[in-house]
Parts: sequence; C-alpha cells; structure tokens
Amino acid sequence: MNKDAHIVTSFDNDLKTVETLVLEMAGLVEAQVNDCVTCLLKQDLELVESIRASDKRVDQLETEIGDMAIRILVQRQPMAQDLRAVVVALKMVSNLERIGDYAKNVAKRASVVTELTPLGSSNETISRMSEIVQDMIRGVVDSYVARDKDMADHWRHKDEDVDLIHNTLFRELLTYMMENPRNITSCMHLLFIAKNFERMGDHTTNIAEQVHYMVSGALPDDDRAKSDLTSSITVDLDE
Amino acid sequence: MNKDAHIVTSFDNDLKTVETLVLEMAGLVEAQVNDCVTCLLKQDLELVESIRASDKRVDQLETEIGDMAIRILVQRQPMAQDLRAVVVALKMVSNLERIGDYAKNVAKRASVVTELTPLGSSNETISRMSEIVQDMIRGVVDSYVARDKDMADHWRHKDEDVDLIHNTLFRELLTYMMENPRNITSCMHLLFIAKNFERMGDHTTNIAEQVHYMVSGALPDDDRAKSDLTSSITVDLDE
Repeated sequence: MNKDAHIVTSFDNDLKTVETLVLEMAGLVEAQVNDCVTCLLKQDLELVESIRASDKRVDQLETEIGDMAIRILVQRQPMAQDLRAVVVALKMVSNLERIGDYAKNVAKRASVVTELTPLGSSNETISRMSEIVQDMIRGVVDSYVARDKDMADHWRHKDEDVDLIHNTLFRELLTYMMENPRNITSCMHLLFIAKNFERMGDHTTNIAEQVHYMVSGALPDDDRAKSDLTSSITVDLDE
Repeated sequence: MNKDAHIVTSFDNDLKTVETLVLEMAGLVEAQVNDCVTCLLKQDLELVESIRASDKRVDQLETEIGDMAIRILVQRQPMAQDLRAVVVALKMVSNLERIGDYAKNVAKRASVVTELTPLGSSNETISRMSEIVQDMIRGVVDSYVARDKDMADHWRHKDEDVDLIHNTLFRELLTYMMENPRNITSCMHLLFIAKNFERMGDHTTNIAEQVHYMVSGALPDDDRAKSDLTSSITVDLDE
C-alpha cells in the first residue's frame, strides 16, 4: 500500500466518523422538534426534562464533531470537495445545535401555555410547522450523506411552506388577542413558539445551502424568496 | 532566519490579518446595533436601507474570514493557543453575523412600529438595551485582541443586565396590551424587537466564552445564571 492510498483511507474513515456523529446529532434534534410539540399538546411536562437532557448530549456532539473536524483539517489537509465536506460539517452542527435550542425554548414555554386555553386551531397549525421542519431536517441530512445537490435544493424550498403557515398563524393570533384581552398571554407565547419554528426552518435552509456548496463549490445563486412577512404585519382593529 | 521562525512569522501575519478583518466586522455590526435603534426612535427609514447595505459587507466579511481561517488551519497547522485563536475567530464571526441579522430585523420592524404610537418609556428602555449590547460587543472584541480572559468574563456577565431589562419590559408591554387592544400590534413588534436585543446579548456572551476558551483552553465553568425568564411569564388580568 503506498503512502497516498493510506492517507486517503484515513481521511475517508475520519469523515465517515464525522458523518455518523452528525447523523446521531440530527436524529436527536429531530426528536426534540417532535417532542417539544408533544409537550405543548399533551401537557407532558416530564418530556420537557427529557428534552433538556437530550440537549446536553446535542451540545456534547457539537463540541465532539467540531474538535474532530478541526483535527482533520490540521492533520489531513484535505482539498476541494473533501475540504468543503469538513467545513460544511462544522457549519451543520452549529445550525443543528441552534434548532435544538429553539425546540428547548418551545418546550419551556409549553409548560406555561398548557395552563392556558388552546386557541382555535393554533396547536394543530404549530404541529404542522413542526412536521415540515422535521421532514426538512431528515431531508437535508440525507442530502449531505448522499452528497446530492438537487435533494438539498428541494428541501431548501420547503421552508417557504413554513414561512407561509407562520404568516397566517401570526395574523390569526393577533386577531385573538384583539378579540379578548384574556387571550393575550397565551397568544404571546404562541407567537414566540411559532417564531421558533420559523427560525428552525431558516437554520435547516442554511444547512441545505451548505450541502449545495459542498457538492458544487458555490452557494445557490437564486436568492430564496423571503416569505416571512411577519415583521411588517399590522392588524387594524377596524379591518 | 531558520525555517521555524519563518513559519511562526507567516502564521502571525495571517492571524493579524484575521484580527483586522474581525475588528472591521465587529465595528460594522456595532454600528448596525446603534443604527437600528435610530431607525426606531427617529423614524429614519433611509437608515434601514443603509443597514441592509452594511449587512451585505458583514456577510462578505464572514465568508472572507471563514475562508482565511480554514486556509490557515490547513496550511499552517497551528497548535495550542494559536489553533484555538483561529477556531475562535471562526465562531466569533458566525456570532457577529447573527447579531447583525438581529439588528436588521429590528430595523425592518422599525418601519412598522414608527407608524404606531410610542408606548410608555419602552423606546428608551430599548435604547438602553442597545447601548449595553454595543458596549459588550466592543468589550469582548477588545478582550479577543488583548487575549484577556478576565476582560472577557467581565463582559460576559453584563448580559445579566440585558436580561433583567428584557424581563421588565416584557411584563410592561403585556400590561399595555391588556389595557388597550389598540396597543396590541405595536406591543407585539416591540416584544419581538426586545427579544432581538436579548438574543444579541446571548451571542455576545457566546463570543466572550470563546475568548475565555481561547486564552485558557477551557470554557468558563460557572454556568452563567439564566436571567431571561420571559418564556415563563404570565400576566394575570386580575393581578
């Protein structure tokens, strides 16, 4: 076996290990996104604790994968797509960690919102957002492992659905608040919860863009339509 | 000049360049944090455009610094504190970029909020949050350049002030909403604006922790007291 072949194999093994850890991390985060909605709908407060525990493991994995990626860069000095694969792994884990953080934040609020009355179909709408985000996470991580740019692009565009649902829910919740001041506290927390899912979608989109970059060497050049309009929504009392 | 000395010098030069770019980026972000409040208070909508423009440069700098850091890792194979300095630069720019993003988000909402009536002293309170965040950004970036762990720790703890102001403002705004439904839309946007500053404080804290790690080789072990309590705040109509 010549020296080059040896180096290539070691690099491949290293990268395989990174991939395995990224998959473990993504699986945990996806479960958190699922569980935080269960906290909300089923008033399952034990699950809030379990999400916190899983968050510790997610943080550990972020550090572990980060350290490993840096070690690979320094020791193996990869080039071209191999180099990008390591750099992208670094960025993926930072985005995944953040998605987990948002899930933890939703779970924390759930313990307040469950004490309050459910409003219209807002819980179902939030479930729907969560399902799309979970599909997106699974999809972009699969596209990373498969090094499939088109698959990454497909999931990147799914974020528009999350944004559209978010816009509608935002308006709906503002209306409930105006109808009855007793709804205000619940709605506030629901608005922040919905915003958390919208941000999860954004971070998953970031990962998809990174996978696109990893495979092609360039970020996608079609600026994805910005569909989150809630920062400019006003609801008129007389409308 | 021996080979080792040459390598050290090149590395130092590279790191100096990274530092200079990080300082430029931090300066731009600090200005964005300042300007987004001016958008809000002075109804200066031209400034919203200027923040967007500056955001493009911030994104460019993030990419530039990121590419440079990776190149240094691969080419110079730094060790110990030198290695950490490069890795920390990578994480710093990702946090700085995010702070800029939050400032942009505040500026976007400002164009809505300015059409609406100011509420109590909420504008002044938000100015105060912004000033502390700006001080923190300047402080942690100085501590990075000075490689000063104690300075980093000092600024890390300042985030508690941001969180306390945020908690108080959160309650105040909920009260305004309950008093008069006509306040609801403004308050909603102000709540999201306040939340954005609270997140900026968190990201600056992340940078401070990274500087601590760069200098000492370990993250701070005192888990900073979590002072953001807004996710569990409920305001009772009858209280």
